[in-house]
Amino acid sequence: MTNKLIYLDNNATTKVDEKVLEAMLPYFKEEYANPSSMYDFSKPSSNAIKEARGVIKDFVNAQSEKEIIFTSCGSESANTAIRGVLNYNKNKKHIITTKVEHPCVLNVYKQLEKQGYRVDYIGVNANGELDLEELSSAIDEDTALVSVMWANNETGVINPIDKVSEIIKSKNKDTKLYVDAVQVAGKIPIDVQANGIDLLGISGHKFHAPKGVGALYVNSKTMITPLIIGGHQERGKRAGTENVPYIVGMAKAAQLAQDNLQYEMTEVKRLRDKLEAGIINNIYNARLNTGVANRVPNTTNIGFEYIEGELILLHLSDIGICASSGSACTSGSLEPSHVLRAMNVPFTAIHGSVRWSLSRFTTEDEIDYVIEKLPSIIEKVTSISPYQKELQQLKELRTKH
Amino acid sequence: MTNKLIYLDNNATTKVDEKVLEAMLPYFKEEYANPSSMYDFSKPSSNAIKEARGVIKDFVNAQSEKEIIFTSCGSESANTAIRGVLNYNKNKKHIITTKVEHPCVLNVYKQLEKQGYRVDYIGVNANGELDLEELSSAIDEDTALVSVMWANNETGVINPIDKVSEIIKSKNKDTKLYVDAVQVAGKIPIDVQANGIDLLGISGHKFHAPKGVGALYVNSKTMITPLIIGGHQERGKRAGTENVPYIVGMAKAAQLAQDNLQYEMTEVKRLRDKLEAGIINNIYNARLNTGVANRVPNTTNIGFEYIEGELILLHLSDIGICASSGSACTSGSLEPSHVLRAMNVPFTAIHGSVRWSLSRFTTEDEIDYVIEKLPSIIEKVTSISPYQKELQQLKELRTKH
Repeated sequence: MTNKLIYLDNNATTKVDEKVLEAMLPYFKEEYANPSSMYDFSKPSSNAIKEARGVIKDFVNAQSEKEIIFTSCGSESANTAIRGVLNYNKNKKHIITTKVEHPCVLNVYKQLEKQGYRVDYIGVNANGELDLEELSSAIDEDTALVSVMWANNETGVINPIDKVSEIIKSKNKDTKLYVDAVQVAGKIPIDVQANGIDLLGISGHKFHAPKGVGALYVNSKTMITPLIIGGHQERGKRAGTENVPYIVGMAKAAQLAQDNLQYEMTEVKRLRDKLEAGIINNIYNARLNTGVANRVPNTTNIGFEYIEGELILLHLSDIGICASSGSACTSGSLEPSHVLRAMNVPFTAIHGSVRWSLSRFTTEDEIDYVIEKLPSIIEKVTSISPYQKELQQLKELRTKH
Repeated sequence: MTNKLIYLDNNATTKVDEKVLEAMLPYFKEEYANPSSMYDFSKPSSNAIKEARGVIKDFVNAQSEKEIIFTSCGSESANTAIRGVLNYNKNKKHIITTKVEHPCVLNVYKQLEKQGYRVDYIGVNANGELDLEELSSAIDEDTALVSVMWANNETGVINPIDKVSEIIKSKNKDTKLYVDAVQVAGKIPIDVQANGIDLLGISGHKFHAPKGVGALYVNSKTMITPLIIGGHQERGKRAGTENVPYIVGMAKAAQLAQDNLQYEMTEVKRLRDKLEAGIINNIYNARLNTGVANRVPNTTNIGFEYIEGELILLHLSDIGICASSGSACTSGSLEPSHVLRAMNVPFTAIHGSVRWSLSRFTTEDEIDYVIEKLPSIIEKVTSISPYQKELQQLKELRTKH
């Protein structure tokens, strides 16, 4: 055990920004009114929500505040979007998604498949890039919905949403597009209008707001049946007393993310690239799983061949470094990542793959520390691998180049 | 406008207890790990959730921690319970609830009715007490689910859940009982085992935790299909990264509520009774809408005859007193409360009904202030009523007794 903490798992969750906590505190203390109440005391909390809605509208560049629904998380946003579109219009029975979606989309699709929907799961190439031709061929007049994540949570690979949208609308203008934008919020700009997006979900805790708040953009031309019904909150699209502090916090986090976007795309990227090069160049059995794919600036997914990822993570944890083998939502499962499997990452590397995800709080010292400490950890784990012959061959091959 | 704040709308939402905020703070600051992650850094947050689950288990007297699911609100708990039971077993098509449920139950039932379910809505008498004979006659072999709130949010009237459960199980042992316990948590003891409850929902912000967290008890013999699917959180019953701070906060709030239960049932009740008597005895056109019904200790619903409730609330708000005309979830609507309508509250009183709901933070001074100020407000509003003749008759009638 160590007191050091080098947190490189920002795609799992992020630290709450101090300014976000500060913005929330009044709504835990004096301004505790139910925003739906009628008396004057409720005005600060209802105004705070109104203002936050405007901020999130701008954050995704929606046309109107009315297109923003606050939810309790990214999973709720996805479930609401997908079921909402399909339940509103039950005539069409074909839906499309990708093989590398987050479980909050994929598992809903699997359930819908059991309920009689015809489902196409679009594949990716070895770099994790979406097969746009396969997508194009899959769309027909019965296609109600296509769900495509903007960036993958495990690899950081960015899908060309503008092209995805263009393809969809050119084949069937009535097909709706849901974009899981959880892993791009705060990393690259989001513009729902420029990208022709019908529905889009984000999650606060991936950009330094707390866990337990999200938003769903639904454009004014798209109708949904709500998932959680009850009171008239969120214009009847999501019942439940509004989580005022977190909604305020997420808006503050969105503003900070917007302010830091340039830093994220330059400085965080520089540190990510430094980490990546420091690993790939110094460890012969390390392999960048995404090749040359276009990625969000904070993520790298590296396979360590012929060894076990869980063991690497254990050694890293011992010296205070947090990284992960896949998404936290599937951790605990012994199966290799469905994302890396869809990419056909060779079996020699898939079990030893580690996701590193930085944030604007990551420092150069931290990256230097990882680059310094990792080789001996990998060596230790490699030394007990049963694949010593293969490792020797790999070493010779790699060091030759 | 005034700086005074006398908050008597605790059935709408409550102030976050300072000790609750204190308990949450570490999980906004240093302990921000995703509890599903594998490294050491995640242990404090995953342990915190484990501990909180134990606290909530004790709070409702469940048999096992496995029976507790954390949700984002009372509405999500109700939606998950109702749809969860019905989606798991689609063979039975008859469901029962009461006419006075919260919209998060009633509106789900109305939607299910449209989807082909046969629905019975059980009525209440003039005091708001459930018609148990009507309930008993309604249950048949096709009845999948009965939803009965433990106490009503507008009137505070307590339903005899032990008898409700006995009636249901004696008529059909396979029928499941969902109890919306949102308005009893922290007010009277909750014991799911002693009361034969299959599923039960609570909402943190009604007992001094923040808005945006709830829990659902599902006993081990009851299967549900989850509402929000995705990752494996909450044993696959509710996807989404766990809201660690709020879960910790709700557990703290439950402990505090348990510690203050005796105070609530004696001292809060004393203040409520004082307020009630102070109004009824001093204002001739005031009417206790619940008669002698058994109620939670903090709530009173009083009708002011021949005048408009909204106008009373406006005047109260001007001097810093917060009360409401019904639930915050239906405020803004001009229709009189569905609860008071189900009780057949006379039309002369239904529009002028005001709910007062206290908490353990309510002081005697505050109650005295309301008793002092209310008569002149009612007099002012009464003076502009178009029903002067009827008011005169009422005055003579009441002052005679």
